Amino acid sequence: MSKYWSEITKSIEPYVCGEQPKDKKYVKLNTNENPYPPSPKVLEAIRNAANADLRLYPDPNCDELSETIAKYYNLDRNQVFIGNGSDEVLALSFLAFFNTNETIIFPDISYSFYPVYADLYNINYRLAKLEEDYSIPVGDFMTENGGIVIPNPNAPTAKCLDIASIKKILDYNSNKVVIIDEAYIDFGGTSVLSLIKDYSNLLVIQTLSKSRSLAGIRLGFALGQEELIDGLNRIKNSFNSYTIDRVAAIAAVEAIKDEEYFKECVSKIINTREKVIEKLMVLGFNVVPSKANFIFVSHSTCSAKELFTKLREKGVLVRFFNKDRINNYLRISIGSDEEMDFFIEKVKEIVDELKD
Amino acid sequence: MSKYWSEITKSIEPYVCGEQPKDKKYVKLNTNENPYPPSPKVLEAIRNAANADLRLYPDPNCDELSETIAKYYNLDRNQVFIGNGSDEVLALSFLAFFNTNETIIFPDISYSFYPVYADLYNINYRLAKLEEDYSIPVGDFMTENGGIVIPNPNAPTAKCLDIASIKKILDYNSNKVVIIDEAYIDFGGTSVLSLIKDYSNLLVIQTLSKSRSLAGIRLGFALGQEELIDGLNRIKNSFNSYTIDRVAAIAAVEAIKDEEYFKECVSKIINTREKVIEKLMVLGFNVVPSKANFIFVSHSTCSAKELFTKLREKGVLVRFFNKDRINNYLRISIGSDEEMDFFIEKVKEIVDELKD
Repeated sequence: MSKYWSEITKSIEPYVCGEQPKDKKYVKLNTNENPYPPSPKVLEAIRNAANADLRLYPDPNCDELSETIAKYYNLDRNQVFIGNGSDEVLALSFLAFFNTNETIIFPDISYSFYPVYADLYNINYRLAKLEEDYSIPVGDFMTENGGIVIPNPNAPTAKCLDIASIKKILDYNSNKVVIIDEAYIDFGGTSVLSLIKDYSNLLVIQTLSKSRSLAGIRLGFALGQEELIDGLNRIKNSFNSYTIDRVAAIAAVEAIKDEEYFKECVSKIINTREKVIEKLMVLGFNVVPSKANFIFVSHSTCSAKELFTKLREKGVLVRFFNKDRINNYLRISIGSDEEMDFFIEKVKEIVDELKD
Repeated sequence: MSKYWSEITKSIEPYVCGEQPKDKKYVKLNTNENPYPPSPKVLEAIRNAANADLRLYPDPNCDELSETIAKYYNLDRNQVFIGNGSDEVLALSFLAFFNTNETIIFPDISYSFYPVYADLYNINYRLAKLEEDYSIPVGDFMTENGGIVIPNPNAPTAKCLDIASIKKILDYNSNKVVIIDEAYIDFGGTSVLSLIKDYSNLLVIQTLSKSRSLAGIRLGFALGQEELIDGLNRIKNSFNSYTIDRVAAIAAVEAIKDEEYFKECVSKIINTREKVIEKLMVLGFNVVPSKANFIFVSHSTCSAKELFTKLREKGVLVRFFNKDRINNYLRISIGSDEEMDFFIEKVKEIVDELKD
């Protein structure tokens, strides 16, 4: 603790991201990265972007990328906001739409960055307790509040909420912004994007980090009616005019355009996921139904913590949350077939060892 | 104004960056960009970074880049903080070190983003009025305050403050953070980096946007004692874990390493600057002494606004601030010799026209 820190610096509990170890090579199933490389067209575009223009500031509005995303999703250009990863888009959204003297709501088991954003900006929050089966408790979001954040599919549970339920929440909260964080939507869920035209309070946030294999370039975006996007731009332009570099913007355009490659990668990941779920169930695992590129599992006899530690020793990284209600679960990213075969082999060894 | 906006979104006056017009080709002397391309080694490194690793998150701590910068400046790795451009570093610093109930000080004529950051986080501020010759009024920073921000050289005046004066300010404010924004330091000023070992309250902020020709990749950094860097990391990790993408981090490492290229570009810009100043003085301009890659000038008879408008018509963009005390000045970035010859030619035409 330093005397130079502001009150908020002293009190904040920063977010801790999944480890990126450098000590040895792991099968890395801990940060929901895509096992497949970015589209070859993305890589080619990056190589072409390595030119003298990098001496110039980027377009602060990311016009070309915004237009590309708008066209892809059949929206207007001014219904798109671009940020430095969906984490930045979320952080700016909290500041743009939520007030310090009101109480926002998000699920108790959810993306653990939400309470950190709230604390950073002194925003109160109430946790909506997930049902026993990890479903979103829709009724809990139909009480007075200062705004709502729901990830769909939820993380780390991987469970989806149906559109009818989200509509109910949007209807009840017509004067408050409802953020639907769709970071994982491309792996089998149904997006609420079609509701944007009818709901001025709906903000949808997506990312290129997962389904488009571009965690390394930091690109997220928000979609919503123009007044919400304007609000986000006001805050962004009071924080950092140019959050997206020239190379990332060019790469992102190509990633959105190459739909065929995107669909192929996503479909491979979904196939792998279903095979892995079957195998884990045979080994005595309980698996929460997943519409994401990860699964949330617990074992009937082996503790999650023990599995986590032993998997690490055997060269496989997964995510364990030492937190009430989920501390007997592991979140496992879906890698390639080869990586998941290796993972299943190691799990089998551990389960067998612990049986003895 | 939307009912969905937070109080801060409603009240904030966002920063307006220099225009990036797309209507036609201009000689662009309005955003202090470097006229020379990034080092060829930087471009090569970017081409090599276009690979499958982009599917993975970047190193959240930018270890390799931090170590490279630390080594270059003879500091410890823990004395370096990396951000998405120096604008982001500044924004995070305001939140990390300044409190809402205290009053910080910065110059009245200065980087116009400072008051925006302060407003964004509800931090009070007092403006220190520059002397008539645009010098920093050192005594004004030796009064009770909640923190200090001084750009050195100052922008848009281009004027430098000597180290002895900065030392006085650091001594007086030993319990408060003093930020010295050295965005333009490489063009002839003397950095205060050597004071870091003696002053735990000193935070120095620099950028690769100007002297290293990389405005397009968004890379800034802060240097200071470990407790300040820790504070910045606490705030950054409560906002966005991965602000620097893989490509930018790799490019930045090469930019720092290629000292020879850097020195060559900087020396060309300084030479051009001195030649331009001479020519402008012959044409009846008053030029504030510059240690930056831009100059701040006014003419004895032509108004700055008229010059700005006519230059734009003739294809030259410069920066005009419609603000008390500087609204008869233009800020002109130093381009290549060819660009500046074109600029001088156009200025001459305008001055001659207005004489008639």
